[in-house]
Amino acid sequence: MSSSDIFIGETIGTAILILLGGGVCAAVTLKASKARNAGWLAIAFGWGFAVMTAVYISGPLSGAHLNPAVTLALAIKDGGWANVPTYFAAQILGAMIGATLVWLAYYGQFQAHLTDKEIVGGPGAQTTSAKAVEAQEKGAGPVLGIFSTGPEIRNTVQNLATEIIGTFVLLLAVLTQGLNDAGNGLGVLGGLITALVVVSIGLSLGGPTGYAINPARDLGPRIVHALLPLPNKGGSDWSYAWVPVAGPLIGGAIAAGVYNVAFA
Amino acid sequence: MSSSDIFIGETIGTAILILLGGGVCAAVTLKASKARNAGWLAIAFGWGFAVMTAVYISGPLSGAHLNPAVTLALAIKDGGWANVPTYFAAQILGAMIGATLVWLAYYGQFQAHLTDKEIVGGPGAQTTSAKAVEAQEKGAGPVLGIFSTGPEIRNTVQNLATEIIGTFVLLLAVLTQGLNDAGNGLGVLGGLITALVVVSIGLSLGGPTGYAINPARDLGPRIVHALLPLPNKGGSDWSYAWVPVAGPLIGGAIAAGVYNVAFA
Amino acid sequence: MSSSDIFIGETIGTAILILLGGGVCAAVTLKASKARNAGWLAIAFGWGFAVMTAVYISGPLSGAHLNPAVTLALAIKDGGWANVPTYFAAQILGAMIGATLVWLAYYGQFQAHLTDKEIVGGPGAQTTSAKAVEAQEKGAGPVLGIFSTGPEIRNTVQNLATEIIGTFVLLLAVLTQGLNDAGNGLGVLGGLITALVVVSIGLSLGGPTGYAINPARDLGPRIVHALLPLPNKGGSDWSYAWVPVAGPLIGGAIAAGVYNVAFA
Amino acid sequence: MSSSDIFIGETIGTAILILLGGGVCAAVTLKASKARNAGWLAIAFGWGFAVMTAVYISGPLSGAHLNPAVTLALAIKDGGWANVPTYFAAQILGAMIGATLVWLAYYGQFQAHLTDKEIVGGPGAQTTSAKAVEAQEKGAGPVLGIFSTGPEIRNTVQNLATEIIGTFVLLLAVLTQGLNDAGNGLGVLGGLITALVVVSIGLSLGGPTGYAINPARDLGPRIVHALLPLPNKGGSDWSYAWVPVAGPLIGGAIAAGVYNVAFA
Repeated sequence: MSSSDIFIGETIGTAILILLGGGVCAAVTLKASKARNAGWLAIAFGWGFAVMTAVYISGPLSGAHLNPAVTLALAIKDGGWANVPTYFAAQILGAMIGATLVWLAYYGQFQAHLTDKEIVGGPGAQTTSAKAVEAQEKGAGPVLGIFSTGPEIRNTVQNLATEIIGTFVLLLAVLTQGLNDAGNGLGVLGGLITALVVVSIGLSLGGPTGYAINPARDLGPRIVHALLPLPNKGGSDWSYAWVPVAGPLIGGAIAAGVYNVAFA
Repeated sequence: MSSSDIFIGETIGTAILILLGGGVCAAVTLKASKARNAGWLAIAFGWGFAVMTAVYISGPLSGAHLNPAVTLALAIKDGGWANVPTYFAAQILGAMIGATLVWLAYYGQFQAHLTDKEIVGGPGAQTTSAKAVEAQEKGAGPVLGIFSTGPEIRNTVQNLATEIIGTFVLLLAVLTQGLNDAGNGLGVLGGLITALVVVSIGLSLGGPTGYAINPARDLGPRIVHALLPLPNKGGSDWSYAWVPVAGPLIGGAIAAGVYNVAFA
Repeated sequence: MSSSDIFIGETIGTAILILLGGGVCAAVTLKASKARNAGWLAIAFGWGFAVMTAVYISGPLSGAHLNPAVTLALAIKDGGWANVPTYFAAQILGAMIGATLVWLAYYGQFQAHLTDKEIVGGPGAQTTSAKAVEAQEKGAGPVLGIFSTGPEIRNTVQNLATEIIGTFVLLLAVLTQGLNDAGNGLGVLGGLITALVVVSIGLSLGGPTGYAINPARDLGPRIVHALLPLPNKGGSDWSYAWVPVAGPLIGGAIAAGVYNVAFA
Repeated sequence: MSSSDIFIGETIGTAILILLGGGVCAAVTLKASKARNAGWLAIAFGWGFAVMTAVYISGPLSGAHLNPAVTLALAIKDGGWANVPTYFAAQILGAMIGATLVWLAYYGQFQAHLTDKEIVGGPGAQTTSAKAVEAQEKGAGPVLGIFSTGPEIRNTVQNLATEIIGTFVLLLAVLTQGLNDAGNGLGVLGGLITALVVVSIGLSLGGPTGYAINPARDLGPRIVHALLPLPNKGGSDWSYAWVPVAGPLIGGAIAAGVYNVAFA
């Protein structure tokens, strides 16, 4: 793969991943969305199929890493580090483009949601309503969750552990896709299986932190949240931002180590 | 493929797509349906599997476009325009047949729903009940949503943008199906993956406009809504009708352009 | 395939189909079931995966018809009628075994449900409670829906039409599985795709009648309902029983005719 | 396969199975989980995709039994018993590791849940609140269900029968995967199909007992529940513990016998 194919493929793929992944969060959260309150199953399937769509689109160009933790783990496994900076840069750029497209697709819904006094409280009193108080207590502005993840209970050790465990499962599944009983890998089925692994992680390990399991998925949209001219958007919770970056990288590295010892 | 195979395949395929897609909207909406209020996840899976069923049935005859935006994008990509009018005509005809079959399958449910005073209001006062007022305010008669899409917030620029973005994702996924890492495409797996891409678009980008992402899917059933002898059916919202036609065609054309530049 | 393989395969396969299909209805309906009120999406996926499981188990032995409408349509398509009586007999027998296994697996739940005064009314007054009245008005005893289908609105013409349309879609999908663009069929993927077609029919066309789309699926369990010693079980609604037998057979025959004209 | 590959593969695979399977129970049950009350469909899909993930990861190393009932049935079918103790030991060890990882990933949620007076009652009065009374009446402490299964209605004969029937279906599906119409098996598709069979069993047969269908899945986490320092955790319900061990082993053995008679 050429550097330009990698850059284009990862940028397009990660943009589609975040457009669809952030999109389902917007769909389920925002006022005047037909999918409002569709629930956690919709979130988990939505992110899983977002991964699937992005993988099949960008696979031929860039191998569809779409996630710095995947790039890191593959570099550890295979020993090739030359393209790592290209992957990382494109993944962050793509994630920022994707988050901006979510804002465009849900422009009216963001405006309606963030200017609803029941949701964000009255002028000068953002915490008036019960819902707004609840959102504040969770340590996030009312729509930050559409962009970035945040913990239900703020405990750095546990939050890091949950992200490490979730990403470890993801990467072990990705790294072993080239293997099977008959000596050949999943082939074109791999994108679908990876997607359902992501659904699984969402259903099973997403409860405490919202399962970033991908530094670009969390950091790129958080930057966009900080930049966008959204009314009453609240803070971008930068004090938490390092956890969904460090956790997935650690989890991916551990998975690569386990793979090299037990499976290779 | 012969012209007659294309016409027969697209007519049958699009009829089945709309029968199953409109069917799930009827199932979730209408009084005296066992699936009433099954929620957005049912809508999204229902439309996705509708696509899948129609693709596997009509694929051998016509290639299973089932969508003028697909036909347009493939014509731009491949440069062959001769069969485009045949595809378009069959897709609109098939969509009208499908919408009529939904009415037949749910005949009693339509009657019960549209003559329920709680739902449509009393005689000469269609907006008496709170539900009916709400439906009116959304700019649609009480069952138009079973036939055609409509925006939650009426904003032409945003509504167009959302349809363009959704169809762009669909078409990029369709156009890249012939590619993968190993140099061969998805093959028979393609119908399933396309279906799950449609589920993804529904979950993630369906909130603002109801994701037509297919001009025939919206226009054909809207014509049928205008023609059918449904009691208290309300208007067919013709002022919005051009958006789910133009948006998907633009989105498909952009995807074909991006494909030709970045992937071909 | 030998006659005995056909008989054994269809009996085991249809028993598993009805065990899992009737099982999800019991799971969602009965008191003291962990899955109670899991909703229509659970019903639709439950029946679809029931078909999938039965198809993969019985396919090698009998070809996994599991449905007299499938057997009829294949006989029309291929012109071979010799094994039809064996298929029919095994399908009915298997369905009766499956329905009996549902009763065994949910024995305590059936007892708790049918002796709950809130659900079935007090002694000598089965229609006392609102729920029991509602169940009676639907023309079915309180647990008949776990065994057989019934219409929400009793209209013979519509009910027949809905079953014909649903089975037509199923059979057209089954008959075209041997075809695709590249000239070879779905192969081992066929069982999964058929299952998802059944999910689709359930979500989209199940609302009016509960989608029998299979005479054995409805008739076998209805006989078992009539025979089992269930307390307060109500009638078996024999006046409706011919509709989910005739409708699917007609729908399957029409699909075979359309296939022979348009696809063969 | 070498003994050490079997031991490592089964330990890692079963740990991942229980991490994801127990994880979805924690996600849906515990206070301060984003997925709380996501419902039975989330449970069923969560366990199914947990199986899928574990199968694709451990398949190349150990063949991915992950379940003593699978190991037993394959030994009966193939006549090879030498590795059975290795499989059993690794499966129990892996299940204990997985359950411990669930506790780690949901540490704060367990603490918040088990010290909430509304949920577990006040000091010295664990059964004060209605919810706590209900949990006690079900014969289980408030979080035992995240670790092990338990019946809604305690009836040894029925509970055993339900576990036997569920495991029989699972094993018949597993044992016939090597067969199909064309003479070759499911291949790499097998992990996905097995996962969806598990979803099916969960939706259809999980209502009465919570579908252990795997002795290691139940016994390993029950031991961990007994050992972990959880506040107000209640008893580990050891009187029931033999049912989800014996039932699945019996069901697996019956399936192997039926396979050898009817399919081999």
